[in-house]
Amino acid sequence: MGPIRSAEILAVGSELLTPYRIDTNSLFLTGRLNELGIIVRGKAVVGDDRNDLARALGDALRRADLVITTGGLGPTDDDLTREVVAGVLRRALSEHADVLATIEERFIRRGVTMPAINRRQAKVPDGATVLANPHGTAPGLLLEEADRLVVLLPGPPREMQPMFEDHVAPRLAALAEGRQVRRRVIKITGRSESQVEEVAHPIYSRLSTAALSIATTILASPGQIELHLSAAGGDVAAIDRALDEGVEHLVAALGSVVFSSDGRSLEAVVGAALRDQGLRVAVAESCTGGLLLGRLTEVPGSSSWVTGGVVAYSNDVKVSQLGVSASDLDAHGAVSDRVAQAMAEGVRRLGADIGVAVTGIAGPDGGSIEKPVGTVVIAVAGARPAVRTFHFPGDRDAVRRHSTSAALDMIRRSLI
Amino acid sequence: MGPIRSAEILAVGSELLTPYRIDTNSLFLTGRLNELGIIVRGKAVVGDDRNDLARALGDALRRADLVITTGGLGPTDDDLTREVVAGVLRRALSEHADVLATIEERFIRRGVTMPAINRRQAKVPDGATVLANPHGTAPGLLLEEADRLVVLLPGPPREMQPMFEDHVAPRLAALAEGRQVRRRVIKITGRSESQVEEVAHPIYSRLSTAALSIATTILASPGQIELHLSAAGGDVAAIDRALDEGVEHLVAALGSVVFSSDGRSLEAVVGAALRDQGLRVAVAESCTGGLLLGRLTEVPGSSSWVTGGVVAYSNDVKVSQLGVSASDLDAHGAVSDRVAQAMAEGVRRLGADIGVAVTGIAGPDGGSIEKPVGTVVIAVAGARPAVRTFHFPGDRDAVRRHSTSAALDMIRRSLI
Repeated sequence: MGPIRSAEILAVGSELLTPYRIDTNSLFLTGRLNELGIIVRGKAVVGDDRNDLARALGDALRRADLVITTGGLGPTDDDLTREVVAGVLRRALSEHADVLATIEERFIRRGVTMPAINRRQAKVPDGATVLANPHGTAPGLLLEEADRLVVLLPGPPREMQPMFEDHVAPRLAALAEGRQVRRRVIKITGRSESQVEEVAHPIYSRLSTAALSIATTILASPGQIELHLSAAGGDVAAIDRALDEGVEHLVAALGSVVFSSDGRSLEAVVGAALRDQGLRVAVAESCTGGLLLGRLTEVPGSSSWVTGGVVAYSNDVKVSQLGVSASDLDAHGAVSDRVAQAMAEGVRRLGADIGVAVTGIAGPDGGSIEKPVGTVVIAVAGARPAVRTFHFPGDRDAVRRHSTSAALDMIRRSLI
Repeated sequence: MGPIRSAEILAVGSELLTPYRIDTNSLFLTGRLNELGIIVRGKAVVGDDRNDLARALGDALRRADLVITTGGLGPTDDDLTREVVAGVLRRALSEHADVLATIEERFIRRGVTMPAINRRQAKVPDGATVLANPHGTAPGLLLEEADRLVVLLPGPPREMQPMFEDHVAPRLAALAEGRQVRRRVIKITGRSESQVEEVAHPIYSRLSTAALSIATTILASPGQIELHLSAAGGDVAAIDRALDEGVEHLVAALGSVVFSSDGRSLEAVVGAALRDQGLRVAVAESCTGGLLLGRLTEVPGSSSWVTGGVVAYSNDVKVSQLGVSASDLDAHGAVSDRVAQAMAEGVRRLGADIGVAVTGIAGPDGGSIEKPVGTVVIAVAGARPAVRTFHFPGDRDAVRRHSTSAALDMIRRSLI
């Protein structure tokens, strides 16, 4: 076998050609292959169709050193990957007694007899290596063909991922040339994609033309912008140094809108800051209806820095649970600095050092000329009080996501 | 042009070959193409590489009547789709004055001069139809080539989707043969994939071999199983009838675990039931930390049936805000029927008819032999009180998602 430099990933299954299901296995595989120094040249999805699969496999084999398929190894007539690969590579397919025994044992352990259709899963193309599957009935297969490697993995991630780690990654590492793709991610909140682009573009143009070229991609989602830096080569230490320098330049230029360059989420950064400072937070939410608390409590261990919160969807609850004054609600409306501040102050009663409140109009209804859909007021009470009014773009879901990020960021800034 | 029966979708962009970004445009396009009677035969992702893109385009054109590309229409050197398509179809590429004027106008409206690089976006292959882009600078392109149609759309969904609707869908509808793919979705909660499979398999085996064959796919995610039925043909009324009968059989066999067969989410079904019965709900959450409230308030208009809630992450908050007795907490622990019931009863104070409480151990820490990670107690107080203990599988995120679905389902069942 020569060195493996490029891969194509082929996801097999008609369900992946419906509007409802997407191939996510290729994200895991791409990440792991990159770490092993292998570039993914292309990805494709094919249905459970003999001709389409054969054609896609043939195309992929002409283009890449390594072809990984996921799916189509099940026991039913729809599961064609084994057969088609054997056909394309002109290998005979025969039942292996030991593979069959392993599958049968799996059923016996569960107290049932193996259905006859599962015999198909014991068929192995000539010369293939069988990859054990401790998490399912479908074994994987690995075939060498001239300078190419073809790997067949099952579709379910809980079967595919350990099989890749245990049986495929070690072989690829042995064939690698020591070349690796390394990455860094800079995460930003409180800026639009074009604002980030304006500051970052001159820097990453320079990085891309440096001796050790760094590629940069910008990814935007409501409330968060990410800059992805990557570089490939044999000298991992030099690449890491160049990437770290690139990150340093970008972070210096972007300033405090960068909340992480080590992969952590905004809620994890906020949680760590609260934990380090021994502070506890409580949250009063209106338009975000629990999502801010949901994000804060996504972080394992969050019970030590989140005491709880109140979702005050109705004005009655704002008054009874948070001590907002009915006259403030009348005079200023629920979406106002005054009410947000009173909510943030009121929720501190839940044994918290810092209170945070979000009140706004997520839509689709409830907007006015003065306070259109997307108007959100966020207040922080406690150590360093603050209140801000935002006008977020997008639909209900986007406004709610923007709001939770903005609130987390206001907590983060109050802790800096 | 002959009829368009099959399509391939080509997503262009090196960022889609990283571990961080996935092509979701093809889901939208697949849904719309299916409605227009066009089957998606395959999908592929290629990087910003001239040769790879040319090869993928050539392959797709041999296989399908329609090839849609998304991405690679931007102004930078990386954006190669225009050029490569012109090359593969052997068409000259030239700047169109009117297209250039439209792009320039867009910049002028924003008060800036068009950067020189944007001129590239005014290049049009011979014989192509230009598709206006009111949401960005990149116009789309549509080319006829013998019996094939090639459509180039921009990558950002907010530009791609309206362009498809306004300029591509009407042309495809005119070329269609009246053949359509129709779908139904049955949504289930409170059953595992294999439990659903056991009941449903005999029925959908029968449906698949009927004169009007119906294909069924089962999709599982934490707390929810979906059965997707689809059938294709020219007689839409007959297909719809067959699908409705199939749905009826499956729903009858599966029983009350089916919560929707009209596309609605569990939170929408619960919201509609609350609205119809004029009831209001309040929620007390511990381990789900706001996610249940987040789901309930995802539904537009939810302020009329959700009064609010309390996230009681600490025991102090359970006592002070929900009136749980400290002695119950000591005697039974926070994850117990007694405490869950007291929380549900206590949160009704927030002006609600129905109180719901979730308390459990989402992990990764906090489990014990008696109450391992995944133990969750859910209580409903009000009209028809109920309390149940669950043992959910999976990690923190999965346990939290399972818990919110189980709680929504308990509300749903209390309203039947």
